[in-house]
Amino acid sequence: MFAKRTDLALEARELWQEGAGRTGRLPGVKAGRQRLEGYGVTRVDILDRRGEEALGKPKGTYFHIDLASFFQRRPDFFERAVRAVGTELRALLPAEGPALVVGLGNPAMTPDAVGPLAAESVLVTRHLLRSMPRQFSGFRSVAVMRTGVLGTTGVESAEAVAGLVQRVEPAMVIAVDALAARRRERLCSAVQLSDTGICPGSGVGNRRWALDREALGVPVIAVGVPTVVDAATLAADLLEESGQAVEEDALLRGHRGLTVTTQDIDARVRDLARVVGYGINWALQDLDIEEITALLS
Amino acid sequence: MFAKRTDLALEARELWQEGAGRTGRLPGVKAGRQRLEGYGVTRVDILDRRGEEALGKPKGTYFHIDLASFFQRRPDFFERAVRAVGTELRALLPAEGPALVVGLGNPAMTPDAVGPLAAESVLVTRHLLRSMPRQFSGFRSVAVMRTGVLGTTGVESAEAVAGLVQRVEPAMVIAVDALAARRRERLCSAVQLSDTGICPGSGVGNRRWALDREALGVPVIAVGVPTVVDAATLAADLLEESGQAVEEDALLRGHRGLTVTTQDIDARVRDLARVVGYGINWALQDLDIEEITALLS
Amino acid sequence: MFAKRTDLALEARELWQEGAGRTGRLPGVKAGRQRLEGYGVTRVDILDRRGEEALGKPKGTYFHIDLASFFQRRPDFFERAVRAVGTELRALLPAEGPALVVGLGNPAMTPDAVGPLAAESVLVTRHLLRSMPRQFSGFRSVAVMRTGVLGTTGVESAEAVAGLVQRVEPAMVIAVDALAARRRERLCSAVQLSDTGICPGSGVGNRRWALDREALGVPVIAVGVPTVVDAATLAADLLEESGQAVEEDALLRGHRGLTVTTQDIDARVRDLARVVGYGINWALQDLDIEEITALLS
Amino acid sequence: MFAKRTDLALEARELWQEGAGRTGRLPGVKAGRQRLEGYGVTRVDILDRRGEEALGKPKGTYFHIDLASFFQRRPDFFERAVRAVGTELRALLPAEGPALVVGLGNPAMTPDAVGPLAAESVLVTRHLLRSMPRQFSGFRSVAVMRTGVLGTTGVESAEAVAGLVQRVEPAMVIAVDALAARRRERLCSAVQLSDTGICPGSGVGNRRWALDREALGVPVIAVGVPTVVDAATLAADLLEESGQAVEEDALLRGHRGLTVTTQDIDARVRDLARVVGYGINWALQDLDIEEITALLS
Repeated sequence: MFAKRTDLALEARELWQEGAGRTGRLPGVKAGRQRLEGYGVTRVDILDRRGEEALGKPKGTYFHIDLASFFQRRPDFFERAVRAVGTELRALLPAEGPALVVGLGNPAMTPDAVGPLAAESVLVTRHLLRSMPRQFSGFRSVAVMRTGVLGTTGVESAEAVAGLVQRVEPAMVIAVDALAARRRERLCSAVQLSDTGICPGSGVGNRRWALDREALGVPVIAVGVPTVVDAATLAADLLEESGQAVEEDALLRGHRGLTVTTQDIDARVRDLARVVGYGINWALQDLDIEEITALLS
Repeated sequence: MFAKRTDLALEARELWQEGAGRTGRLPGVKAGRQRLEGYGVTRVDILDRRGEEALGKPKGTYFHIDLASFFQRRPDFFERAVRAVGTELRALLPAEGPALVVGLGNPAMTPDAVGPLAAESVLVTRHLLRSMPRQFSGFRSVAVMRTGVLGTTGVESAEAVAGLVQRVEPAMVIAVDALAARRRERLCSAVQLSDTGICPGSGVGNRRWALDREALGVPVIAVGVPTVVDAATLAADLLEESGQAVEEDALLRGHRGLTVTTQDIDARVRDLARVVGYGINWALQDLDIEEITALLS
Repeated sequence: MFAKRTDLALEARELWQEGAGRTGRLPGVKAGRQRLEGYGVTRVDILDRRGEEALGKPKGTYFHIDLASFFQRRPDFFERAVRAVGTELRALLPAEGPALVVGLGNPAMTPDAVGPLAAESVLVTRHLLRSMPRQFSGFRSVAVMRTGVLGTTGVESAEAVAGLVQRVEPAMVIAVDALAARRRERLCSAVQLSDTGICPGSGVGNRRWALDREALGVPVIAVGVPTVVDAATLAADLLEESGQAVEEDALLRGHRGLTVTTQDIDARVRDLARVVGYGINWALQDLDIEEITALLS
Repeated sequence: MFAKRTDLALEARELWQEGAGRTGRLPGVKAGRQRLEGYGVTRVDILDRRGEEALGKPKGTYFHIDLASFFQRRPDFFERAVRAVGTELRALLPAEGPALVVGLGNPAMTPDAVGPLAAESVLVTRHLLRSMPRQFSGFRSVAVMRTGVLGTTGVESAEAVAGLVQRVEPAMVIAVDALAARRRERLCSAVQLSDTGICPGSGVGNRRWALDREALGVPVIAVGVPTVVDAATLAADLLEESGQAVEEDALLRGHRGLTVTTQDIDARVRDLARVVGYGINWALQDLDIEEITALLS
């Protein structure tokens, strides 16, 4: 059968529930909802091997913050989003120690630019703490890395990050990346946080280029924003909705390398990358949003 | 009925032919094929009002240069593509007089960046001819304009171009833009040239912001590269292929503002923009490709 | 004698005063100082032909806002700078009517990027007022133009602006540009406002490419930030200070095309461009600084 | 005494020779000239401790390729420059083994952008050799790193490079950087190659952030282009030429952080960065210049 693609744990759970005859409880997975700062947050915990296999994602905690209402720009929408992301991020991060923030993806391709754009809003303090430790004693040490694109570096992101981790010796890595959603309604409308790191490809299989605790030796918190839908997945959903049996080969053949995205992605990716960058500062440093703005200017 | 979207005359003709009971000849339209420099070229002439209505595009000549084989990078693929584009462009352009090349679109959004990227490869000579007329007497006067994005200028492209045309008084405008294809196989795989100018929106209806001879007072040659497929059009085709009746409302509602594009669009758009820029130089100036490269460096 | 270069009226006046035997009053020029929002402001009025000849600048009012203390980042330094620039700008601008803001200069060259960078912080409203006049009735209509670089357009900035002015029909043009200072202490440390427009080259001579009321038919307010010192001017000052007679030819020969700038120019130009952009919004729209930030995000 | 600043071994030697009473031979230094591909090449060998102290640069071989005539654009000026740089680079490089090319500097600041710009013209092959070893067997493995700017990463370039070297295990590092010249005539008019690596600051003193064999464990070949003159050095030369005694304090106080550069630096840096990038390809891969162009497109 054709496997619909999603990087969101929330959607992986929905896909499982849609499966034929799956009326019971999903074994090895726990989920719950709450509201935070006016936004809906769904928490999915993958508890064991059964959960990993059912959802195709590694064991750990996933927060899905629904920011669909962000773009209605109601009062304090930005500050509330930053606090919502920051609060859940703080729940996943070690309480102290230096951090390395990694912006993954290609800054020249809007749907892939979330990581490098978010990195622009992160307060970089490591060099200041080294040269003026007394003056900056109130700050957490933060370094930032942009991994670039394989075709222009020849180096896998995971290799490059591992190299820098050995030198910088952070207590945690925060890796920001663009994700694929299954549902087009979720494009540029959510942030997913997890303590599982990033495993390129299918999740639990390909370990070679993983960016996770096992590979890097420190906790890796992943922060992702869904910016594309795989075209074959969109097509499969469309055909199913209209009562069609889906032929896997035709789907994959006809949509290889195609992705679906929104036309206003440029502004939305920029906005959400700023929410993520500010949220990271909010979680790591003891600063409110106006202070962050003043320090970034 | 749901109107599938395409900016390509070739595809508009295909859509007409697919129409129920349309077995006969398409009235008011003439078409023919040839090979040029190893690439297939289809010429579509819309001859009169009947042709305009059938294809939803203004009267004129359209060349569709199929560059699908470009990315196999066979010997001289770049030079041959430049000559193919340049040859057909020369067929549409006035034989002499100064030219204004307009790069339409947003340089920060890859699928929309064909125009500004092509502009980077165009030899700009107008200022040189004014300051050193004797030394540059062998060149055609060429000025270049990048129109920017409505949201950051407040000015429609057509207004801005009309303003500059009044000052620069070119004998022709060459307007480069990104297009929407209906078929995903045509993404970043073709160049369309036409002598009709550009009419944003539905083609023959909305004249307000047209970039054409009527609006600008000089011939306007449009050069376009298909870089996106409208997601609703993709969905409609998919459902039809699987024997479904297509409900227009559902399609439009569910896919508003979504577009489909290829993952490797960054490199492909860059390559084809260079083909277009070089093709314009080839058509306007009496230079071969090595000479163009030397002058651009 | 070697003519030291400055685009600042304040410095032109200083140069006159340094002239041999010039102990008396400068005829045709009036000057005065005040403090505004914690920053020093010098106003120079060139009243007539005698003043024009003495200072080599066209008749009009010049405000020089000294922002040297900006980079000490004392409380509210940014807001105060915006209000200082905005207040004096409002004194020079027509009270109402649509505005066209022009960002002159090359965005890829930091010392020349003030204009395009400031343009990024200007609220663009013209298109919104046209499509939703009722909703945006509280805003002044503002359009923005980036002129680009002669070598990549073939068109002089003044020609391009004149073309757009004919189409957009603003009641005023605000032209933002980088300036040359004589004194290195003034690099990236001041903003000059004037109601004279911009006259490239020596000021009162070369009228061909002027961006002023005579050329455009509407008031042209110039906003400039000094970002470079001409190297020959620096050398001449240095030799004079050390009691040397300055040989003009040697100076000009040895320093042609060289400019002096600060190493931290990147951050400073970005900061001052934002002050200028916000100051323009403050002067044109009835908004405070937080509202501007919210609208720009 | 005021120490004039230069990163060029050729100029350090000139400065020594200008020293009072230095009519004899410079101990511990050997120098010679030749012509290569129509350009002048000066080789300076610093042989021992005496030479290091006299010139303030580490022991090793320095090639200074004078490209002043490059911008006259005589026949084959680009190809000849690439071969000249490539030939001398090959003389300094290990004959085989994988290479890591490091582009140092800030891409957003033209005088500092030589490194990242050169990196854009380097053929990246490491990932291709890993995934398709048979097809790419004719190529040397090349990876590329752009180090970014301390203020936006928090990590010193030398730390970041050391981290990647541990992972990638190249047989050599080629580090491209912008340099300071003493003489303004040398701005954007030369390329310096050396087998000494890069030692930020004064050369033989500060070893902390060195990018050299001792720090990285592999040969480090430095490739530099002079793009700025230190303003205090320019001033000191100017005063000396006019017979003045130079007061160090005044010079340093008045010119701190100021640099001198050419107005046309944007185009020149772009051109020379391309020469460097192509020269690296020429030295590392068995390809002629047309083949490099085809592979880079």
